[in-house]
Amino acid sequence: MLRTHNCGELTIKDCGKRVTLCGWLQRSRDLGSMTFIDLRDRYGITQLVFNTDTNKDIYNQAKSLSREYVLQVEGEVKERSNKNKNLSTGDIEIIVDKINVLNTAQIPPFTIEDNTDGGDELRMKYRYLDLRRACVRKNLELRHRLSILIRNYLNNKDFLEIETPFLIRSTPEGARDFVVPSRMNPNEFYALPQSPQQYKQLLMVAGFDRYFQIVRCFRDEDLRADRQPEFTQIDCEMSFVEQEDVLNTFEGLIKYLFKEEKHLEFPKFNRMTWQDAMKYYGSDKPDLRFDMKFVEIDDVAKGKGFKVFDDAEIVVGICVQGCASYTRKQLDELTEFVKKPQVGANGLVYIKYNEDKTFKSSVDKFFSQDDLKVIAEKFDAKPGDLMLIMAGKKMKTRISLCSLRLEMGSRLNLRNPFNYAITWVVDFPLLEWNEEDQRYYAMHHPFTAPKPEDYPILFTKPGEVRANAYDLVINGTEVGGGSIRIHDKKVQADMFKALGFTPEKAQEQFGFLMNAFTYGAPPHGGLAFGFDRLCAIFAGADTIRDFIAFPKNNSGRDLMADAPSMISQQQLDELCLDLKKKD
Amino acid sequence: MLRTHNCGELTIKDCGKRVTLCGWLQRSRDLGSMTFIDLRDRYGITQLVFNTDTNKDIYNQAKSLSREYVLQVEGEVKERSNKNKNLSTGDIEIIVDKINVLNTAQIPPFTIEDNTDGGDELRMKYRYLDLRRACVRKNLELRHRLSILIRNYLNNKDFLEIETPFLIRSTPEGARDFVVPSRMNPNEFYALPQSPQQYKQLLMVAGFDRYFQIVRCFRDEDLRADRQPEFTQIDCEMSFVEQEDVLNTFEGLIKYLFKEEKHLEFPKFNRMTWQDAMKYYGSDKPDLRFDMKFVEIDDVAKGKGFKVFDDAEIVVGICVQGCASYTRKQLDELTEFVKKPQVGANGLVYIKYNEDKTFKSSVDKFFSQDDLKVIAEKFDAKPGDLMLIMAGKKMKTRISLCSLRLEMGSRLNLRNPFNYAITWVVDFPLLEWNEEDQRYYAMHHPFTAPKPEDYPILFTKPGEVRANAYDLVINGTEVGGGSIRIHDKKVQADMFKALGFTPEKAQEQFGFLMNAFTYGAPPHGGLAFGFDRLCAIFAGADTIRDFIAFPKNNSGRDLMADAPSMISQQQLDELCLDLKKKD
Repeated sequence: MLRTHNCGELTIKDCGKRVTLCGWLQRSRDLGSMTFIDLRDRYGITQLVFNTDTNKDIYNQAKSLSREYVLQVEGEVKERSNKNKNLSTGDIEIIVDKINVLNTAQIPPFTIEDNTDGGDELRMKYRYLDLRRACVRKNLELRHRLSILIRNYLNNKDFLEIETPFLIRSTPEGARDFVVPSRMNPNEFYALPQSPQQYKQLLMVAGFDRYFQIVRCFRDEDLRADRQPEFTQIDCEMSFVEQEDVLNTFEGLIKYLFKEEKHLEFPKFNRMTWQDAMKYYGSDKPDLRFDMKFVEIDDVAKGKGFKVFDDAEIVVGICVQGCASYTRKQLDELTEFVKKPQVGANGLVYIKYNEDKTFKSSVDKFFSQDDLKVIAEKFDAKPGDLMLIMAGKKMKTRISLCSLRLEMGSRLNLRNPFNYAITWVVDFPLLEWNEEDQRYYAMHHPFTAPKPEDYPILFTKPGEVRANAYDLVINGTEVGGGSIRIHDKKVQADMFKALGFTPEKAQEQFGFLMNAFTYGAPPHGGLAFGFDRLCAIFAGADTIRDFIAFPKNNSGRDLMADAPSMISQQQLDELCLDLKKKD
Repeated sequence: MLRTHNCGELTIKDCGKRVTLCGWLQRSRDLGSMTFIDLRDRYGITQLVFNTDTNKDIYNQAKSLSREYVLQVEGEVKERSNKNKNLSTGDIEIIVDKINVLNTAQIPPFTIEDNTDGGDELRMKYRYLDLRRACVRKNLELRHRLSILIRNYLNNKDFLEIETPFLIRSTPEGARDFVVPSRMNPNEFYALPQSPQQYKQLLMVAGFDRYFQIVRCFRDEDLRADRQPEFTQIDCEMSFVEQEDVLNTFEGLIKYLFKEEKHLEFPKFNRMTWQDAMKYYGSDKPDLRFDMKFVEIDDVAKGKGFKVFDDAEIVVGICVQGCASYTRKQLDELTEFVKKPQVGANGLVYIKYNEDKTFKSSVDKFFSQDDLKVIAEKFDAKPGDLMLIMAGKKMKTRISLCSLRLEMGSRLNLRNPFNYAITWVVDFPLLEWNEEDQRYYAMHHPFTAPKPEDYPILFTKPGEVRANAYDLVINGTEVGGGSIRIHDKKVQADMFKALGFTPEKAQEQFGFLMNAFTYGAPPHGGLAFGFDRLCAIFAGADTIRDFIAFPKNNSGRDLMADAPSMISQQQLDELCLDLKKKD
């Protein structure tokens, strides 16, 4: 080893020891007769001291060094006069008598500090320098710790980690596959897995009983803000279980992670049906850090001559505590907010329940004080509260109101990322109607089991069939989801039929899985967590990109390596491919 | 849970308990008034009993069940009269009073037994049934255990597991890349990593100090017998280390795995230079389970008028103990063996040192008894030994003799797979001359550091430069290898020059790595183990395929999923690709 200690471990107990350290020059301060250098490595920062009186040569050498030089230094550990309580090594410093410059460094294009001056693009291009910043490094250290904890928990519960293939068969159902041309099988392609779904089910057919894998998955989608073309799942499956067993097992995992990593303990997680989540929060991933539940007020809002309400499929609102004092300007801001295309509402009705028990609303023309009082009672509003109401098509209005609710939560600082509100959302619909394609799609995937009691209406009322499917939601973010799978070949065939597959088409695309089910498939179910997202939530962060060592940008480019790139004609020829111009 | 216990855990202590088990019907035996069923799950086998006298209905139901049916049974644990010491549950049986058929099963196309009647192709097509066989399942259980142990060891040594990207930039140096067309960046391609080599070096530049990853890698090569297009590496890198530190750290890992998994302890691993490995074993991965070291006998074999020896660059042989009694037929077999194209020798000379101290050789015409005695002394041969000698070009002859040595080891049962002989091979050449391309290639990869003392001859005697590169060899198989990397940009530039890259070409292909090295790269090094191979060695098996859940065949096909396959015209259009006919 080129060092005797790392830069994070020396304490007062080491005083008098002769040590060798290696690291990067974080910063240096010249105080005339003395120079101080902060030497940095992954483990911490140690202060080096160079004194012109005691060793003029090394003092001069130290002065010549620049930021990010890689140094090996030898010296003696001394107690500091000026201790730094923020550093693990803050009690000591090293009186250096030997410097070996292991490597020089250009001046980095941005400062290697938590508060850097580098913009996003620049930091991505020089990701290896961005990763030197403690705040970024800590994210990947957290990720490492969580992966170790996850494996320990699941290993202790008899789960086996089994690697499934990355070069698989392309299946058009679901999102778009990345494909890989095969040279040995010309004109044929592998696909990269969107998830190991079919393989983990085959492992259950194979009798592996409990499987997990922390595994990369791939989706060739137009990238929204916080999506990556490759992402990591904690993928799990169990045999001989019912929904309750899956929920309990993985509730246990999440509790274990919070306990070990953050010393937080939780009671039994909340459970909410998908119906209730939509009705009360307008979302299948409700943010439960704050209340502000939806209240439907059709019965008291309609019939007063206000056409917007009278013509609406639903009149629904939220009661915001203590906001009756909102100014005209603030209320206008909210109206503008809901009219933004992302929110998509036509307008917003407010009712202030003033401290003096009078009401002031944007619909005073249609509603008397008594009418407003009746509405306020529906909302369980108190003097000082502000009611915000929307009306229109049921689903659309709920979704818009959800945005408004989250906005109000943010304005009122009710969304502290370290205040964890966790819920299971259960009883998802099995199928989802797609207007564009005029057909049903599987809401989770085509292997999700309908609830047995809803199976009889699969063909008569397909939209009403509920699935044994569930999501885990933390702070308004879906961190995982899964389902009990179909293990019966007749149910699976019916499912494909409900999705509009001919038996031939189903056989062509999923034949090997359906075939496997004829050889004794056990009842099974499972789920997958988004590992990148879970890490972000544990760190109280918004974006997953900071938890991925080498992420891609929104065009799927790696700015550092400049990938993707052109390949050679020889490579194309070997793969029997020609390039076409983009239309 | 659909069960109270699994099929491997009930013992004599559970007698009298009412239990529910789930599993597959392994086999049933009807003894007239009683039927026995072996119920199988991942954890074991439990015997079920059905007695026509006590419960005729359930006896009849049991008789109607077929192999591989999925059952849920309820009953009482009873002590067996006829105990089976080979089963963990062999002391008990279940008197069943309730059967629930969870799923039926077609008769499987081969028997689900360790000694199955299914051929390779059939078992690959129905891999989910093949995986039900205990002998295959145990391989994947071993793999899981090793992965847990590896992570624990490395985590305890401060290594961080960091995930590197799968969609990277294609670099033509090295083996052929699998490529992935980018839809968002038309006519551009990602490559799948052959290893995370460049990324792990960037992590060292980023200051992560110690990195590892158990990670899938991809090589589009024509598949030799035991190669897979996707395979798994234990990929590791350390900063501020010298070769000795890397060897000690990973020697520790391998020892830890043998201790924990197999209760085997090893002294310090042997070390051998590449030169010695080639000289004494004709291979850079010598099988040291047996001795039979090469002996060069040019000085005593030449000048006796035997042209084959006289004209040869080298005359070299092995002494096989106790084989002087080999018959003419046996010796002919050996001559045929060495003449096979895979071995490639022109012939074989033998000298028998008979028990009566006389000699008999295939070159008696040229060598007197005294001449042969001198040769025998060179070999340190004893009466009863057989000397086998080859001559010709130096490297070619050594490689052929290596095949013969291994063949003799096998014939003499000296290659017990559970007798582990481990060695480091060190001091590999930096460069390797390629006759076809008339240029040097990096023996490991272009980032491997030359030994400092050999750096001055990089351009004058490139073939003689040794690298700080090493392989770990177990029982004649390379299970891992690595090197100290170049961290100096001038050395790296010289290396690319020695490989025949123009500065522009080097910049184009490795620019981001070379650029990174200008910002303060620490001295670093590492290695990678082949995880599939390591698992096979621990199991004493020859082929890695049995340690991969869903392997591909020699044409890179997944026979079960039938991948690769054609993709749709829409997919091709989106990717701006046209297919060409194979020439």
